Amino acid sequence: MTSANELWYTDERRALREAVRGFTRREIVPNLPAWEEAGELPRSLHEKAAELGLLGFDFPEKAGGEGDFIDLMVANEEIILAGGSTGVTSALFSHTIGAPHIAAAGDPWQLDEFVRPVVAGTKIASLGVTEPGTGSDVGSITTRAMRDGDEYVITGGKTFITSGTRADFVTVAARTGGPGHRGVSLLIVESDRPGFTVASRLKKMGWLCSDTAELVFDQVRVPARNLIGQENTGFLQIMQRFESERLTLAVQAVATAERCVGLAKEHATVRTTFGVPLAERQVIRHKLAEMQRQTMVARTYVRDVTARWAAGEDVGAEVAMAKNTAVAACDFVVDEAVQIHGGMGYMRETEVERHYRDSRILGIGGGTNEIMNEIIAKRLLGAP
Amino acid sequence: MTSANELWYTDERRALREAVRGFTRREIVPNLPAWEEAGELPRSLHEKAAELGLLGFDFPEKAGGEGDFIDLMVANEEIILAGGSTGVTSALFSHTIGAPHIAAAGDPWQLDEFVRPVVAGTKIASLGVTEPGTGSDVGSITTRAMRDGDEYVITGGKTFITSGTRADFVTVAARTGGPGHRGVSLLIVESDRPGFTVASRLKKMGWLCSDTAELVFDQVRVPARNLIGQENTGFLQIMQRFESERLTLAVQAVATAERCVGLAKEHATVRTTFGVPLAERQVIRHKLAEMQRQTMVARTYVRDVTARWAAGEDVGAEVAMAKNTAVAACDFVVDEAVQIHGGMGYMRETEVERHYRDSRILGIGGGTNEIMNEIIAKRLLGAP
Ligand SMILES: Cc1cc2c(cc1C)N(C[C@H](O)[C@H](O)[C@H](O)COP(=O)(O)OP(=O)(O)OC[C@H]1O[C@@H](n3cnc4c(N)ncnc43)[C@H](O)[C@@H]1O)c1[nH]c(=O)[nH]c(=O)c1N2
Ligand SMILES: Cc1cc2c(cc1C)N(C[C@H](O)[C@H](O)[C@H](O)COP(=O)(O)OP(=O)(O)OC[C@H]1O[C@@H](n3cnc4c(N)ncnc43)[C@H](O)[C@@H]1O)c1[nH]c(=O)[nH]c(=O)c1N2
Repeated sequence: MTSANELWYTDERRALREAVRGFTRREIVPNLPAWEEAGELPRSLHEKAAELGLLGFDFPEKAGGEGDFIDLMVANEEIILAGGSTGVTSALFSHTIGAPHIAAAGDPWQLDEFVRPVVAGTKIASLGVTEPGTGSDVGSITTRAMRDGDEYVITGGKTFITSGTRADFVTVAARTGGPGHRGVSLLIVESDRPGFTVASRLKKMGWLCSDTAELVFDQVRVPARNLIGQENTGFLQIMQRFESERLTLAVQAVATAERCVGLAKEHATVRTTFGVPLAERQVIRHKLAEMQRQTMVARTYVRDVTARWAAGEDVGAEVAMAKNTAVAACDFVVDEAVQIHGGMGYMRETEVERHYRDSRILGIGGGTNEIMNEIIAKRLLGAP
Repeated sequence: MTSANELWYTDERRALREAVRGFTRREIVPNLPAWEEAGELPRSLHEKAAELGLLGFDFPEKAGGEGDFIDLMVANEEIILAGGSTGVTSALFSHTIGAPHIAAAGDPWQLDEFVRPVVAGTKIASLGVTEPGTGSDVGSITTRAMRDGDEYVITGGKTFITSGTRADFVTVAARTGGPGHRGVSLLIVESDRPGFTVASRLKKMGWLCSDTAELVFDQVRVPARNLIGQENTGFLQIMQRFESERLTLAVQAVATAERCVGLAKEHATVRTTFGVPLAERQVIRHKLAEMQRQTMVARTYVRDVTARWAAGEDVGAEVAMAKNTAVAACDFVVDEAVQIHGGMGYMRETEVERHYRDSRILGIGGGTNEIMNEIIAKRLLGAP
């Protein structure tokens, strides 16, 4: 391979891109305004995506999965490039943050009960780590899971949970041991268990079609077989999967940037002011040039790191650099894309307006810019 | 005076600040979420603001006005600092962009018919310059006003008109002469004239409580006495008043930044991660320091230029520099304020989230960042 990019355009992945593009234009783009209004995606979209095989990427064949992490990234990219959004991908693919721990643990009953249906698009999965009192500081969560015979009794609250109002089950981080990260376990909590409540559907700046829940667990009982992996290994499991989430967010940021460069270019070509198309003004040309430069550099770096990560290399710090690079490029591009659109850039009917709001979450979710810098600094400098 | 700031804190203006603060906390803050939802301010707010004398600033006494432009700026500032928003000020004070041309022209009938009632809060005024085909390029507007006996017949369309769905009258820029800026006049168009339609209420990124209209004029007849000033002097009148609009937007940007520094500081003080309040982390401290620096520098510069402008100096380029400086500071601050709030910064219940969306318009409305640079460059370099 002469370039990190090639892997993303094999013949198979070109075909995948075309399929996803068709799917996006047919099933997503015409409905997106209504979903943004409704505040959620319909279940039928998960089923349709599953028919196309989009929900099985990076999941094991024994749970119905097929395709790898790069395929998942290509699908994310193409949904955004074809007129979808990171709101759509975050909700449609919430199983890629909610179910991988289960897949990795490999318990056959759990695979059949939870992973297989999400791959088939018939169940929706969420990840419940963040709490009102603690986000970045995952090791400080206070939701408790007390062992009681063959059950765990879970009490506590989670917030900002993507797909949490629709989820059939949530992979919940709960304290089974002492304080700190060594006392955390992951448990599958079905949303129809008594004591499980969606306390609120949160209203957000963007990601409007992606429902976000505050959840309350009031002595929710789940069988012990809902424990994922070993007791008190939850923190490690979360951290391992965080890297794929971060790469996903990085890929989404790059795709959003790429889409917005295209949209801004188009607008600059058709809009005339003072008798001259914007695309002929030097200031606009240089804006677009810089938008393109940042996007392409971020895309190449993100793809390079993704390939290394997928090949099993230890690239935690590089993943953090990839996320921050992609987010910075995206932040810059969506802002300039709005600016180039002038007043239209502020209107909800304009696609770049949505990307501007949607993408503001990318430097916060899955580990903030500052937490990424902590990771990079630790690799570079050691612990303080 | 030893500092540009003093003028903003005379005894009278300290009292004004306190009055506006009380008004904002009592009348605005508790209702703002509902107005954001409704997409407009109630007329009663204009009446209440008028009772306090807030709508008469910078309008002549013979039309019921009292107080000057600095008073108006202080009122703008204080509404935002006390928990209001630029959405509120843009809609509540839309008469400060819609009616000054009438006040300056000084026709007694127009003063009584239009200016007096807006100062009393019983009529709402808008400014209609921008058209779908032309924004920055004001000289290219295509809305026509044809003289027909004692009337003008107006045909065309305007868009992005603040308060336009509620307005009792709109100060409309229309072409009465040949092409270019020399053929433009300003005419008062009452919204109950046959042929005047609100074609749509635009959905926006922010300024949700500030209604924004697309207007269509289909052979709307207005009496010739609705002409503001002389025929074909509209462009000059618009350009003269643009400077006060730009200073107002600059003051709003600074106040938004100041408010958000305060909110971010407060959050950083109460939020603990990894056992330590955010306000003790060096990265957060330096963010807040830089936010404060940019805000204070912008505030001082904007106030200095405002004082010079109010004293009648020719400071068109400085006004442009003030607007761009204030907008850049505000953009930086609202972004970091959201970031410091983490996931909460993305939630609609969080005040900085609203400021983030609201303030994105400030670098677009009233002349974009790029148009400001054109003005500065022209002063510095001459015409190209
Ligand atoms: C729309 C949306 C969707 C989701 C989520 C959030 C949002 C907004 N999240 C939660 C998300 O992961 C969480 O918001 C981030 O991890 C950040 O945590 P806090 O919001 O608590 O900010 P926190 O309070 O940790 O941080 C606030 C600010 O302080 C900074 N900071 C923190 N510690 C610092 C330090 N030591 N030094 C310097 N700066 C520091 C941060 O970088 C940030 O800028 C989530 N969660 C989940 O479990 N499942 C999900 O599905 C989702 N989905
Ligand atoms: C919420 C809101 C509220 C209002 C308004 C807008 C919005 C969004 N406006 C309209 C506003 O004044 C208008 O949007 C701006 O003047 C910009 O004009 P356009 O949107 O047409 O952008 P335009 O198409 O002119 O510009 C698009 C982009 O190109 C850039 N550009 C343009 N010419 C350039 C050049 N020669 N060189 C380099 N770059 C150039 C601009 O800087 C901008 O980035 C308005 N209007 C009104 O009449 N009454 C009102 O009440 C309001 N209120």
